Amino acid sequence: MLGVMRATVLHEVRDIRLDTVDDPRLVLDTDAVVRAVASCICGSDLWPYRGENPFTQPVRIGHELVGIVEQVGSGVSTVQPGDFVIVPFAYSDNTCAVCERGVHTACLNGGYWGGDDRQGHFVDGLQGELVRVPFADGTLVKTPTTPDESLVPHLLTLADVFPTGHHAAMCAGVTTGSTVVVVGDGAVGLSAVLAAKRLGADRVVAMSRHADRQELARRFGADEIVAERGDEGAATVREIFDGIGADCVLECVGTNDSMKQALRSARPGGQIGYVGVPHGVQLNVPAMFGRNLGLKGGPAPVRAYLPELLQDVLDGVITPGDVFDLSLPLDQVAEGYRAMDERRAIKTLLTL
Amino acid sequence: MLGVMRATVLHEVRDIRLDTVDDPRLVLDTDAVVRAVASCICGSDLWPYRGENPFTQPVRIGHELVGIVEQVGSGVSTVQPGDFVIVPFAYSDNTCAVCERGVHTACLNGGYWGGDDRQGHFVDGLQGELVRVPFADGTLVKTPTTPDESLVPHLLTLADVFPTGHHAAMCAGVTTGSTVVVVGDGAVGLSAVLAAKRLGADRVVAMSRHADRQELARRFGADEIVAERGDEGAATVREIFDGIGADCVLECVGTNDSMKQALRSARPGGQIGYVGVPHGVQLNVPAMFGRNLGLKGGPAPVRAYLPELLQDVLDGVITPGDVFDLSLPLDQVAEGYRAMDERRAIKTLLTL
Repeated sequence: MLGVMRATVLHEVRDIRLDTVDDPRLVLDTDAVVRAVASCICGSDLWPYRGENPFTQPVRIGHELVGIVEQVGSGVSTVQPGDFVIVPFAYSDNTCAVCERGVHTACLNGGYWGGDDRQGHFVDGLQGELVRVPFADGTLVKTPTTPDESLVPHLLTLADVFPTGHHAAMCAGVTTGSTVVVVGDGAVGLSAVLAAKRLGADRVVAMSRHADRQELARRFGADEIVAERGDEGAATVREIFDGIGADCVLECVGTNDSMKQALRSARPGGQIGYVGVPHGVQLNVPAMFGRNLGLKGGPAPVRAYLPELLQDVLDGVITPGDVFDLSLPLDQVAEGYRAMDERRAIKTLLTL
Repeated sequence: MLGVMRATVLHEVRDIRLDTVDDPRLVLDTDAVVRAVASCICGSDLWPYRGENPFTQPVRIGHELVGIVEQVGSGVSTVQPGDFVIVPFAYSDNTCAVCERGVHTACLNGGYWGGDDRQGHFVDGLQGELVRVPFADGTLVKTPTTPDESLVPHLLTLADVFPTGHHAAMCAGVTTGSTVVVVGDGAVGLSAVLAAKRLGADRVVAMSRHADRQELARRFGADEIVAERGDEGAATVREIFDGIGADCVLECVGTNDSMKQALRSARPGGQIGYVGVPHGVQLNVPAMFGRNLGLKGGPAPVRAYLPELLQDVLDGVITPGDVFDLSLPLDQVAEGYRAMDERRAIKTLLTL
């Protein structure tokens, strides 16, 4: 079965291709093989694509997928061939001491897609036709029935981008009546707006300078848009919120500038939830201490959040798939990356 | 009334004296003047005493006091001459937008003792005989009746050290059933042990290398003592807590080493509450992010916590004053500093 399926491979900076590669197979009896229905491109895929995360050899890429189970190992009991499943951006056993506490992205046996698992067996990236899924029982969440095609984009967001926005809101402690600022108008930031409103936020300010993203932020429930950044942006946010800033700030970028913006947007005693993978973030600890600011974030434990969020998607309560503004067949994946790199697209869906 | 009362003045590094200074007087109609019954020396007073916080001229010092109201301005309504009051380590109006949210140490009109207020009027340090209290209604908390002398040490801890330990526990999210590690066996760390147990923590580990402090930690409810530090300490803590670390870590020192110890003692998804004033703390943000660690801390909003904690002291539920292991008359304040500097005392009470 060598060289049968196609998968996305990043060869060099900005040189990404759909290559023919080995088909995945069941290696351990807890594995499943899943055939892709749709995957997508994440803002964090752009870090290696742009060379900002170095890599030394061609790498498989992608970590968001919905698909149909094709094969399961003898030890798999919760999914079976034919099931429609959501594949979170990290695999996890869902049984270890860390998963028991809901932090599946730090699973003692888990890991990320596109490299070897802890036993040295290769795990595919998720921008491809097929994927070997370790700990299928722990990792995969199936839908009750095969969903209508119109739901696919919304379900696909549950693999990463929407639960990541939700995680920002949870880490920032958003609850009924909270005042909220979202820093970052990428797909995660926009998802965070939707997540904050879903959790009952009273007033949500989205910081955005782009008309199309402002429009989507409004559609997701943002009450106000602040286009300014830096000193001016912070002053505007403080003015909106009683002259002191917001209870909760959702940092959805990961740069030092965006973190600074987030810290300055919070009121004394406020809380920053951050989900942008930090690149060069330096914290002024005495300043944070002086204002009693809290900070919490990390890779979203998608698997923990999935059952609750899935229900809202199935019930039509939320339509997080509205973040996709470009849809391409998988064989045009390179154009999908270019569109996001050049900010022509917020987020690219890849169909099969 | 020049040169009548006596107050502690730090003249040079390790040169601290009880000087005769101007009596305080009512300056604004929201002021009170309070006569000291007891004050004490804080670990944070040692920073300037040791020259680790620079100062350029003699400074008044001290920020923990219980006393009797002597005079009140015409605008003061909640306390009157003769009331026994607790004076928190920060003064605050208790009415601004920040105080309304319970963050009195960032009061828009408040400040700290031993310097000018925002209107340029001098505010005494609290290691003295008398003190001008700005925003008396907002700052002072009186006891229902004049307390028995035996309660004075316990009540005095409510000015700073016990609510600060409590704040560490609150910032770390300690609740019923939490697993907890306390880093630091000074008066604040020991108070944090007591606070964590009071909030319902299941198992509390105190990190301490000193027999007398270990004993007090046990008396305050610590379930286990870990004497090791660094790699060894972190490994022991992980072993105690399911191989993954504690839910909540209370950082009560403020150095880079102690913060590192705290971060390494938390389980993935765990929360660090920090109340040691940070000196040279550098955070490894990507490492914190990878483990989904949360961090929150700052100067404890004592005024917000006081009513609840006061009741427990008056009811004899807690005896936080057990942290005092040295009691001296105010005129031996220099010896009190020496004893703490040389670690001969955990915390020094000053009587009048």
